[in-house]
Amino acid sequence: MGETKRIGILTSGGDCAGLNAVIRAVVFRAIGTYGWKVLGISKATQGLMSRPPEFVPLDIEKVDRLLTAGGTVLGTTNKGNPFAFPMADGQLVDRAQEIIDGYHLLGLDAIIGIGGDGSMAILRRLAQQGGLNLVTIPKTIDNDVDITECSIGFDTAVNTATEALDRLHFTAASHSRVMILEVMGRDAGHIAISAGIAGGADVILIPEIPYTIANICGKLRERQEQGKDYSLVIVSEAVRTETGESISSTDPSGQFRYGGIGQYLANQIAVCSGAETRVTVLGHVQRGGTPSPLDRLLASAFGVAAVDLIAEGHYDRMVGWRDRQVISVPIAQAIAHYCVVDPNSTLAKTARGLGIYLGD
Amino acid sequence: MGETKRIGILTSGGDCAGLNAVIRAVVFRAIGTYGWKVLGISKATQGLMSRPPEFVPLDIEKVDRLLTAGGTVLGTTNKGNPFAFPMADGQLVDRAQEIIDGYHLLGLDAIIGIGGDGSMAILRRLAQQGGLNLVTIPKTIDNDVDITECSIGFDTAVNTATEALDRLHFTAASHSRVMILEVMGRDAGHIAISAGIAGGADVILIPEIPYTIANICGKLRERQEQGKDYSLVIVSEAVRTETGESISSTDPSGQFRYGGIGQYLANQIAVCSGAETRVTVLGHVQRGGTPSPLDRLLASAFGVAAVDLIAEGHYDRMVGWRDRQVISVPIAQAIAHYCVVDPNSTLAKTARGLGIYLGD
Amino acid sequence: MGETKRIGILTSGGDCAGLNAVIRAVVFRAIGTYGWKVLGISKATQGLMSRPPEFVPLDIEKVDRLLTAGGTVLGTTNKGNPFAFPMADGQLVDRAQEIIDGYHLLGLDAIIGIGGDGSMAILRRLAQQGGLNLVTIPKTIDNDVDITECSIGFDTAVNTATEALDRLHFTAASHSRVMILEVMGRDAGHIAISAGIAGGADVILIPEIPYTIANICGKLRERQEQGKDYSLVIVSEAVRTETGESISSTDPSGQFRYGGIGQYLANQIAVCSGAETRVTVLGHVQRGGTPSPLDRLLASAFGVAAVDLIAEGHYDRMVGWRDRQVISVPIAQAIAHYCVVDPNSTLAKTARGLGIYLGD
Amino acid sequence: MGETKRIGILTSGGDCAGLNAVIRAVVFRAIGTYGWKVLGISKATQGLMSRPPEFVPLDIEKVDRLLTAGGTVLGTTNKGNPFAFPMADGQLVDRAQEIIDGYHLLGLDAIIGIGGDGSMAILRRLAQQGGLNLVTIPKTIDNDVDITECSIGFDTAVNTATEALDRLHFTAASHSRVMILEVMGRDAGHIAISAGIAGGADVILIPEIPYTIANICGKLRERQEQGKDYSLVIVSEAVRTETGESISSTDPSGQFRYGGIGQYLANQIAVCSGAETRVTVLGHVQRGGTPSPLDRLLASAFGVAAVDLIAEGHYDRMVGWRDRQVISVPIAQAIAHYCVVDPNSTLAKTARGLGIYLGD
Repeated sequence: MGETKRIGILTSGGDCAGLNAVIRAVVFRAIGTYGWKVLGISKATQGLMSRPPEFVPLDIEKVDRLLTAGGTVLGTTNKGNPFAFPMADGQLVDRAQEIIDGYHLLGLDAIIGIGGDGSMAILRRLAQQGGLNLVTIPKTIDNDVDITECSIGFDTAVNTATEALDRLHFTAASHSRVMILEVMGRDAGHIAISAGIAGGADVILIPEIPYTIANICGKLRERQEQGKDYSLVIVSEAVRTETGESISSTDPSGQFRYGGIGQYLANQIAVCSGAETRVTVLGHVQRGGTPSPLDRLLASAFGVAAVDLIAEGHYDRMVGWRDRQVISVPIAQAIAHYCVVDPNSTLAKTARGLGIYLGD
Repeated sequence: MGETKRIGILTSGGDCAGLNAVIRAVVFRAIGTYGWKVLGISKATQGLMSRPPEFVPLDIEKVDRLLTAGGTVLGTTNKGNPFAFPMADGQLVDRAQEIIDGYHLLGLDAIIGIGGDGSMAILRRLAQQGGLNLVTIPKTIDNDVDITECSIGFDTAVNTATEALDRLHFTAASHSRVMILEVMGRDAGHIAISAGIAGGADVILIPEIPYTIANICGKLRERQEQGKDYSLVIVSEAVRTETGESISSTDPSGQFRYGGIGQYLANQIAVCSGAETRVTVLGHVQRGGTPSPLDRLLASAFGVAAVDLIAEGHYDRMVGWRDRQVISVPIAQAIAHYCVVDPNSTLAKTARGLGIYLGD
Repeated sequence: MGETKRIGILTSGGDCAGLNAVIRAVVFRAIGTYGWKVLGISKATQGLMSRPPEFVPLDIEKVDRLLTAGGTVLGTTNKGNPFAFPMADGQLVDRAQEIIDGYHLLGLDAIIGIGGDGSMAILRRLAQQGGLNLVTIPKTIDNDVDITECSIGFDTAVNTATEALDRLHFTAASHSRVMILEVMGRDAGHIAISAGIAGGADVILIPEIPYTIANICGKLRERQEQGKDYSLVIVSEAVRTETGESISSTDPSGQFRYGGIGQYLANQIAVCSGAETRVTVLGHVQRGGTPSPLDRLLASAFGVAAVDLIAEGHYDRMVGWRDRQVISVPIAQAIAHYCVVDPNSTLAKTARGLGIYLGD
Repeated sequence: MGETKRIGILTSGGDCAGLNAVIRAVVFRAIGTYGWKVLGISKATQGLMSRPPEFVPLDIEKVDRLLTAGGTVLGTTNKGNPFAFPMADGQLVDRAQEIIDGYHLLGLDAIIGIGGDGSMAILRRLAQQGGLNLVTIPKTIDNDVDITECSIGFDTAVNTATEALDRLHFTAASHSRVMILEVMGRDAGHIAISAGIAGGADVILIPEIPYTIANICGKLRERQEQGKDYSLVIVSEAVRTETGESISSTDPSGQFRYGGIGQYLANQIAVCSGAETRVTVLGHVQRGGTPSPLDRLLASAFGVAAVDLIAEGHYDRMVGWRDRQVISVPIAQAIAHYCVVDPNSTLAKTARGLGIYLGD
């Protein structure tokens, strides 16, 4: 099985369902098959920035129960680009070298980074600058990482959003209301379009396609004329109006602003349609929870494959999922483009084909 | 089985899971056993107010699939006390007699009203004034109807709120955050205390027990000293501070005000504890959804029993659940007191016994 | 808070959902409030029979994550009455004194036993004989413990069985089949009757009420005449035919015999009705799984209350649940009667009132 | 949108979750967009064999609530190859022409057939022989249709099987048992391998890879040496032993034989390992139930795309799913190969990489 290695693993960016299942698979493969050492780095790159570096030695016993556990036992953070790290005094400082030094202080042969688009770009820059042997695993509830069909956490988030629509359907119909469900997705509407189709929404609003309030209300009127006096609207947390105005429910740090897009729409729809409206902001329940079987499967496959890439000395690569197989590509290729909802994709055509209003 | 009767059934007030299962049981019993006629009145008492009265003749075929369906096929409304009904011009008009006349126009022998505390009081007043033969079935996600252990919809709402806490637990721990879940319950904290215990909350705030922000933060600090850098807070939509100030997330019509109690607490906790906070407002997903098995069981038992009361000529009574049996009591007795969380009840003791902060 | 105590806790008999939540609540209360020591005894009374006695010292950290975990971390067994314990050579030996000695060897001031009817009788006999300070907590998916409305594990088992009926409903209707679901309940039909009503079964067979195959087929024919060419049957694992013959799917050790009652019925129904039949034996999935919110609530309340009984020096008592409050009664009173389904209970009346065939 | 068409739709073979969602999507697209007529053919090709042909005219109102409903409102059957149809007297008769005539009697312009491998082969032969304009949609819980990544019903079946493993995990651990879960999959082990990885099985047995009982027991012993005294085994309904012996739990009609592979393994494992074993045969609960969001999404996309193929005059094609897009291929290409689990696929490697025993 070749020489014994010492590898690190970290989770970066917003948490999601399936991270722990990746950690379990990495440990099972690296220790169970290869007999390596695995260090769990605490709180993303901040664990490497600390002195001494903060980590937990991982073993099979510690990760055995993690398959179904949401979140990440390593902790994570989406604060702080290490190349412009916000200090207590408000200054932005380049702390990249501290992280690189942390990697070498721990004597790591390689590191597996689980993160989204942004995290992978940062990790790759660190790896290039500091000689880190890096393999990455895509995770994001927004599913906006390119190349791979799915990233970890997306399927679970879609399930949660769909279940919320299922519930709202009944209460909307009982009270003849327009129910608005606001879901995550600042830059890509994958959750909204997938859950919207699966949950039977009448209107789906996503960042990629501008909408007009007049056409939303036209759709609601069309339903009323068919004898349906209630409707379901699903909206991404940030969308654009016809005038190009961008409306977002979150500030750049991800903190929700109530009275955001969901409430804004509720007010506008109430005015133009005369309907009673109610808003639900699903928030962080989309991130947590037991991972879906598909997310556990992806997590297991990605974890094993990432360790195998290290065993073969293939670095600077991201694993991905395509056609029910794991693939791997250069990280640079994966982060070159941001994967948004294509207005001519199957899902967009499906939504329109079902008569759903998806913007103009 | 005695003479053939013609009975009405209506659902009143906010919808919840299990209403359709009651309708199904009533139809199965009244038609299947007794051979009666059953009229489903549309939109609570408004169906009786319309001319001609609005209703759907119900039969076994129509209700056969309703056991698992959330909401109410009859529609409902929580707008408009008929004794002071808001007209288009803003005037409040007593329209009780129109409803009474509607009942007699339909030639009803009796009516089953499914509603909460307030609806039952109104229905009883109508029955007294107009000679309606009334039997009521308690439903409310808030579980604030007295005498009965459970009302329809409560168990499902607690399940939904508990599941949300389960999900938030993981993401709170991953990000070292204080997560705040705002649930329904304007006047009674049954959902919050039940889901809070079942979902492992660290702080439970309910309308019945005032809290101090200092003691909340004391609890969070106590956890930090034990190495737990995250916490879960569940809060009813309306609570009282130590100064007696009442804070509510809904206006009297039930419309959510974002920036309500959840956000208010998040801001205060962030200041006093320095922790990162996030708020989820669960909203109407608590009402909808497939009813839990327990809610379906209650609904079935209540529906059969209500029809049997009519068969026996016992009116002005509410069915209830106690010690795994259906009971019935005079409606007046059921609505004499409003059932809130007793600060010395088992659940309150359990919460405190587990170290949960439940107010002062 | 009085003197410091040293208490044991054990889980006995078949496992179920909620046992871990009890263990957590006991530790939170005993250590968190009273500052006692808590010893988790391994594998029911067998841990006390071992030399040295087998146990795990419990603390808050160890039990913190147990609220949602199914099963029991202490392990359990339903093999071996200690008063007639089966030895390797097949002999039955009275080993009660070894258990009693184990209790005293550990220096226990009291012990909390979580078990069903049979376990509580054995534990009480041990306590009487050996001077053990015993408090018991009722658990059984069969819900056959008297006095208490619910025992731990029952609600979750009913949920699992109901969900299986929900699933079978669709496939039965699609294929015009009679689907038979066999559930647990050797001596009491509480799971079958509760899940049967909640899941919309057409036939419910329980140990308490004999059935005739002719009347089952009469019910199926009645449905066919109403245009319903499919049916759902739920059956307890042991039932009696009209001739008094008892048919059971399990041998006394709880091992399933395939070709048991479910398959027996399937064959008979196929012959008398000509319908296509399929059997599902739900088996141990009824025991496992994340406890329902209600089971977690009961578990938490029971755990806190059991510790409080010890704090007050009240022994030889079982905690129970009635009217949303914890009660406690002498163990002798709780085990005096076995709680079966009363053929005149609300649930039996409800089943018949809905037109379900429940035996003769 | 071109001329008005009159199309048929039928569901063939064993039912699964998502069929109704396809029917809904077809109706929404064909009627809502194109203004066509849609006839729902009853009970697969048997509806076309009847005289007059049996069908239901479908409209948007009738299918509106079908998104979340399991099974198929059209009914289905997996009895009777029309080219050798079993008559009441036991003779096999070629009734293909009757079906072809039925299609023409109804004046259909095209027909959408939802089925698996076998159904599609039969439908294509009928179409070739009788000039039917056919488009097919792949469905099978076994996921053994080639070309497409997923067929309808597979994701839901995997979820159900995984959830069962999750439940069995707890009870296995509590009782130190080996739990055996038998799942569907007569010729392909996709459910077993997917659910086995996602649900944390220790042993996965599938039809594609022979096993030896000695190596199963070796794996169990390896776990015992690591201090794990329980194990989970998932097994497809038909597997092969090392001697090439084939063991199946179902006869060719799909009827379960209890005492099949699950029980056979339980006995063998009990002997060779000395462990207590228990078997759960999941059976038809894998078919039923509310479709998962992914199955609803696929169903919606396939339904819309199939109608669009007809609109474009593209017949003799199957729609499929690849890289998050709908594709279409000649039916002949899709049924040329049967898609089994490749022993060198990602999932097989993942299973072995996690230390799971997957056969030899």
